[in-house]
Amino acid sequence: MTAAAEEPAIALDVMGGDQAPDATIEGAIGWARSTGQRAILVGDVDVMRGLLSSGGEDSAAWRLESGPTTIGMDEHPVQAVRSTRDASIRRCAELVRSGEAQALVSMGNTGATMAAGVLIVGRAAGVDRPGLAVLIPGREAPTLLIDVGANAEARPEHLRDFGLMGEVYLRQVLGTPNPRAGVLSIGEEATKGSPLTLAAAELLAASPLDFVGNIEPGGLFNSSADVVVCDGFTGNLVLKSFEATAEFAVGELRAAVRRRPYTLPGVVFMYPAFRAVRRRTDYAQYGGTPLLGVNGVVIIGHGRSNAMAVENALNAAARAVESRVVERVSDGLALIDR
Amino acid sequence: MTAAAEEPAIALDVMGGDQAPDATIEGAIGWARSTGQRAILVGDVDVMRGLLSSGGEDSAAWRLESGPTTIGMDEHPVQAVRSTRDASIRRCAELVRSGEAQALVSMGNTGATMAAGVLIVGRAAGVDRPGLAVLIPGREAPTLLIDVGANAEARPEHLRDFGLMGEVYLRQVLGTPNPRAGVLSIGEEATKGSPLTLAAAELLAASPLDFVGNIEPGGLFNSSADVVVCDGFTGNLVLKSFEATAEFAVGELRAAVRRRPYTLPGVVFMYPAFRAVRRRTDYAQYGGTPLLGVNGVVIIGHGRSNAMAVENALNAAARAVESRVVERVSDGLALIDR
Repeated sequence: MTAAAEEPAIALDVMGGDQAPDATIEGAIGWARSTGQRAILVGDVDVMRGLLSSGGEDSAAWRLESGPTTIGMDEHPVQAVRSTRDASIRRCAELVRSGEAQALVSMGNTGATMAAGVLIVGRAAGVDRPGLAVLIPGREAPTLLIDVGANAEARPEHLRDFGLMGEVYLRQVLGTPNPRAGVLSIGEEATKGSPLTLAAAELLAASPLDFVGNIEPGGLFNSSADVVVCDGFTGNLVLKSFEATAEFAVGELRAAVRRRPYTLPGVVFMYPAFRAVRRRTDYAQYGGTPLLGVNGVVIIGHGRSNAMAVENALNAAARAVESRVVERVSDGLALIDR
Repeated sequence: MTAAAEEPAIALDVMGGDQAPDATIEGAIGWARSTGQRAILVGDVDVMRGLLSSGGEDSAAWRLESGPTTIGMDEHPVQAVRSTRDASIRRCAELVRSGEAQALVSMGNTGATMAAGVLIVGRAAGVDRPGLAVLIPGREAPTLLIDVGANAEARPEHLRDFGLMGEVYLRQVLGTPNPRAGVLSIGEEATKGSPLTLAAAELLAASPLDFVGNIEPGGLFNSSADVVVCDGFTGNLVLKSFEATAEFAVGELRAAVRRRPYTLPGVVFMYPAFRAVRRRTDYAQYGGTPLLGVNGVVIIGHGRSNAMAVENALNAAARAVESRVVERVSDGLALIDR
């Protein structure tokens, strides 16, 4: 534990992600050069050796673990993790379970990574339901939304626990000094919501968290709260709604310009502004989303992750290990009256 | 009934909406001039007389009903409707209930209009839960999403009924030839969803509807289905997520341009393209959203409605009356095995 605290052992799923294994290896090399730390690389050993060499690395200096099979985006997550013994994500989770690694990072199938986290890494002490968290970019600061898909159903206590887990992550990994918690709902008034959100709000108000009440979707961009909780079905839909609107808006604007060629010079002039917005809302900056409540650090990156995103995900994993997020989540939950 | 079929009696809530009563009276006058039909105007009679005169109308030719009080955006909808006897929206609903009008149109407090619809107009025969529907603008055709807020909770049968009600509205009022129905969920695969959506999907598949399965938020913009059902909490959150993302994107772009003044000429060049996107996604085009399943036509316009939006809402109400949407919804629901 003392050695681990100095240099966290992180298992990287080299085979997961649209740009894998090139982007994952490149990200691992970049992280090693900037921090002096090497991740445990899990994937097809021959392929990894080749990419390390072409990246100017001595592959003998790296720990390589065999896990050559990738779980595809269209496979059933739980079944695939259960039946594919040599899947890279499963091997990563086994390394965390055995204690050889304290964290895993994957840009692959999100469902498979969640399944590996829950089934193989296992739940942390005191946790009933792990939750997947995502950072929503905001005008001032990003907001952590949890759960965005680990569970299709949740009880009020789960939402309260998501708040506690998110609070620990924000404080320890992102350095938010006094995180405020809210519950995602359809109106700011305390009377608005579903039976689930109304009951969760009562539990949150009675918890040690700084609970600020209901947060509407617009509040996620306004830094109205630092951590906002919801059930995984709702969170996943809201997240997909954000993505869908952004895609629709960009597509409509492209089509409008195409139909009006005389507006094209405007795009050129505005390009630096468009790029700035894109950079501010770029998932790659935030280093992946944590699956909180499992017995190890699990960071899930976007499938489209490039090397920079992989490097940021490794950084987030290292910070989570160093700040003992897993133990702190369990300690926090142990304080709650149940 | 025969007279009504020739000229539907529509009660217009003159006092509701941010730009009321000016925009509502202007919309009523515009509608009268283009169709030769006069809505029943409900509001402060003196104010309405004055606005009609300054609009060049003979106010004696119009039926004016007294209902001078406006229910504010911050009042509790159900309580306000119950306790405010002279509220314009309540008077409109009473006219529908008594049969003096077949439809009501309001740009006021959405919750109050829903409450007046459900409590005073009452549910249509065979309807357990009315549903609020909204048209989402799409790449090819708009998609009707229902329910977006009439009920915070729903059972699978309610979602199935929303599909049937939406199908009738699309076919009769918007002229969609063969509406396809879907259920809003977190993945296209039939196995993905919440217990509610999975059960609703089974009922929809067994219904007379052309059921195309799960629709993700992105599918709402893609014309993947014509009517998409969900519970009111989810629908309201998704709708608010669309609005929040669009607002955030526009705000970020503005800020990015402000920080880079040299990009400003681009905005000028691109203006026609921006305007085209805005026009395509303008709520005013779609003439308000119907509250389906009540015993009369209830059309709820956007609070920001201008005169054009009011005119379009009156048109939608007239088409709904003429095509006997209310009776057809009841007839459709009567065919379902329960």
